[in-house]
Amino acid sequence: RERVRRILETPAVQRSIITVILINAVTIGLETSAELMAAVGGLLHLVDRVALTVFVVELAARVYAYRNEFAKDPWNWFDTLIVGIALVPATGALSVLRSLRILRALRLVSAVPSMRRVVTALLTAVPGMASILGLLLLLVYIAAVIATGLFGDVVPDRFDDLPRSLFTLFQIMTGDDWGNVAQSVMEHKPWAWVFFIIYILMSTFVALNLFIAVVVNAMHD
Amino acid sequence: RERVRRILETPAVQRSIITVILINAVTIGLETSAELMAAVGGLLHLVDRVALTVFVVELAARVYAYRNEFAKDPWNWFDTLIVGIALVPATGALSVLRSLRILRALRLVSAVPSMRRVVTALLTAVPGMASILGLLLLLVYIAAVIATGLFGDVVPDRFDDLPRSLFTLFQIMTGDDWGNVAQSVMEHKPWAWVFFIIYILMSTFVALNLFIAVVVNAMHD
Amino acid sequence: RERVRRILETPAVQRSIITVILINAVTIGLETSAELMAAVGGLLHLVDRVALTVFVVELAARVYAYRNEFAKDPWNWFDTLIVGIALVPATGALSVLRSLRILRALRLVSAVPSMRRVVTALLTAVPGMASILGLLLLLVYIAAVIATGLFGDVVPDRFDDLPRSLFTLFQIMTGDDWGNVAQSVMEHKPWAWVFFIIYILMSTFVALNLFIAVVVNAMHD
Amino acid sequence: RERVRRILETPAVQRSIITVILINAVTIGLETSAELMAAVGGLLHLVDRVALTVFVVELAARVYAYRNEFAKDPWNWFDTLIVGIALVPATGALSVLRSLRILRALRLVSAVPSMRRVVTALLTAVPGMASILGLLLLLVYIAAVIATGLFGDVVPDRFDDLPRSLFTLFQIMTGDDWGNVAQSVMEHKPWAWVFFIIYILMSTFVALNLFIAVVVNAMHD
Ligand code: NA
Ligand code: NA
Repeated sequence: RERVRRILETPAVQRSIITVILINAVTIGLETSAELMAAVGGLLHLVDRVALTVFVVELAARVYAYRNEFAKDPWNWFDTLIVGIALVPATGALSVLRSLRILRALRLVSAVPSMRRVVTALLTAVPGMASILGLLLLLVYIAAVIATGLFGDVVPDRFDDLPRSLFTLFQIMTGDDWGNVAQSVMEHKPWAWVFFIIYILMSTFVALNLFIAVVVNAMHD
Repeated sequence: RERVRRILETPAVQRSIITVILINAVTIGLETSAELMAAVGGLLHLVDRVALTVFVVELAARVYAYRNEFAKDPWNWFDTLIVGIALVPATGALSVLRSLRILRALRLVSAVPSMRRVVTALLTAVPGMASILGLLLLLVYIAAVIATGLFGDVVPDRFDDLPRSLFTLFQIMTGDDWGNVAQSVMEHKPWAWVFFIIYILMSTFVALNLFIAVVVNAMHD
Repeated sequence: RERVRRILETPAVQRSIITVILINAVTIGLETSAELMAAVGGLLHLVDRVALTVFVVELAARVYAYRNEFAKDPWNWFDTLIVGIALVPATGALSVLRSLRILRALRLVSAVPSMRRVVTALLTAVPGMASILGLLLLLVYIAAVIATGLFGDVVPDRFDDLPRSLFTLFQIMTGDDWGNVAQSVMEHKPWAWVFFIIYILMSTFVALNLFIAVVVNAMHD
Repeated sequence: RERVRRILETPAVQRSIITVILINAVTIGLETSAELMAAVGGLLHLVDRVALTVFVVELAARVYAYRNEFAKDPWNWFDTLIVGIALVPATGALSVLRSLRILRALRLVSAVPSMRRVVTALLTAVPGMASILGLLLLLVYIAAVIATGLFGDVVPDRFDDLPRSLFTLFQIMTGDDWGNVAQSVMEHKPWAWVFFIIYILMSTFVALNLFIAVVVNAMHD
């Protein structure tokens, strides 16, 4: 076990794994091209098989080498989940999994230490955002219920039901095409600008403070 | 009175109130669906009634328990206003109030301490923004008067009268679709780009400084 | 002279001036409405006349009271320019001045001390931005010359000549509708995405650093 | 050699070079106008020739004056590359180089010390961004492979093949017109909002942290 562990930790092995991840990410990308599949589809599938085998063997070796310690590192759970998905047969109702095979490229994050650090830093920022994020969600939900009630009958393709209104209001919060949405409502209800201006000012202000919370947190570290 | 106060402040009671708020927010959301209303409309209305009764009873208990102190906390005024709106009959000219019933979900903000703190922090940022906000409003107003005078006759659906120009210029300030608005004016008045570029540069610059004022304020706390 | 000066500096006089500015800003806004002009046009013109007279008298009093000191404060030059424009007859080639009369509302900035401070702060930020602003201008100019040469013949309504390309590229820098512009070019020249992606990345990066320069400057003060 | 060096470093010579760069930038811009070319095309070409000669002579003088030191300054490599491109005959396959002649205006950056400092500062920010930039690229690549697989057949003009999906997802990351793209997909696959909302939240969050990394770096300097 000590020997397997030492082998796994040599830079040469780690660099090889990263290379396999990168090659596999490229081949899965190439598989989206019908022409390339017709020409070299067999080769691409072979590479995919080999890469998957490498991942499974490496993961098994890590389980053998680290045993109890293995389960303590959340990054190992992450790797297990990603490789596990690849082993589920992607047929029938699960055919969407075929398209998600590229998620395997996320193994790059756990394999490259500097990326691992970046993602860890990003994730540690999330809890400090929880309250403001909750407030933002509440704001969007309330606005969506109001918009469905007030505008649902006049502009049904934007505010027909609650899910559609939620989508439209998320779009408006990002500032995308909100003028046109507002104007198509205002044709029927001229006072609707009140709703849209208040919603944009409030959601932008809360989002700005979400942003500030992340910056201030980052500054303290 | 001392006993009522102690009951109101037990975590169990507070958690129950939060649960009622959340359930009521969900049922008001579900009421926007015509299908669900046909199927379980009676149940949804019943839940609404019960939730409203809980809010009224809780508010009455707080008034009884805290008396003079009650009026000193602005959050209590906030809760009273929200529950009060729910009791106004939403008929005739006030039928818009039906759609605003979901504002009751804002009680979540006063009920959850961490949200209360976030909103308080957001509101304390507002006074420091007053001067820049005033400058921004002045800028938009001046630009709207100029645009109505110069472009009102050539692009009436954007700059017909002052309210419409204010709306269009607010939209342009958010960067939404300003290129198309400018170009529809420039078809008639080719020099109009001068107006739009100056307006965008100035409003963006002032808005950026508004943003900086908020960040710098947040840093000092 | 000492007495005139003391009168000008009493809060009552200063508040009156601010009130006149605000009333005049509102009446100029109301003059954009054809209906209101038909109904109370005479009154609006009268208010305008009175306000202008007040401004001229106050300015004359300030010149009399402060004499040499008057010319030393750039805000006085600002006020003189604004009032001076209002006195130029807005006929013939100068009829555009009619629409610019609302610029008089900018006197609010020099009259309200807190706005004066905000604008002074904004202006002191400008010199520190000069180098990055120059770089940004150079970038847009170079991109516009290249785009006119490469895309002018295939998408003439966007890149026909240098001024039009400058406008289009300024629009793209603000992120407005750039995807459609790029795609209309890519229909003819499929490799055009290289140009647009490089331009967006570079202009955004430089604009971001312009922004940072302003923030860091603001922090030091 | 010492004398050539002293001449090159006199402010008069350096100001002359900057003037030649600016004049040349203007004339190349004017050459995009067919009318001006018909009228004064000969003159514009002449100025171009003279400017190019000046650049070549100045560069040769610098090589002669500084010899080994010349190659040590990356800005000299930059100048050599820019002037070198101008000397390549822009015919046949290289006719695109004609449109890139304006890149010569970038010599302004190396000639003006304050711009040189700004660009150096911008470039030193890049290495600190490498990890987050890599993560952002990985995110866009993974999303593009998934989108090509899931949406390629229903909205081919946006997600037909990998390059097109990469372009569309870059556009969506900048927030441009993403609502329309998402809705054209959702007409066929109503659950597609899951993909778009997750992609926008993740890419925005990573881009925000890229931004913060640049700000924090800039603060430390
Ligand atoms: Na847009
Ligand atoms: Na936009």
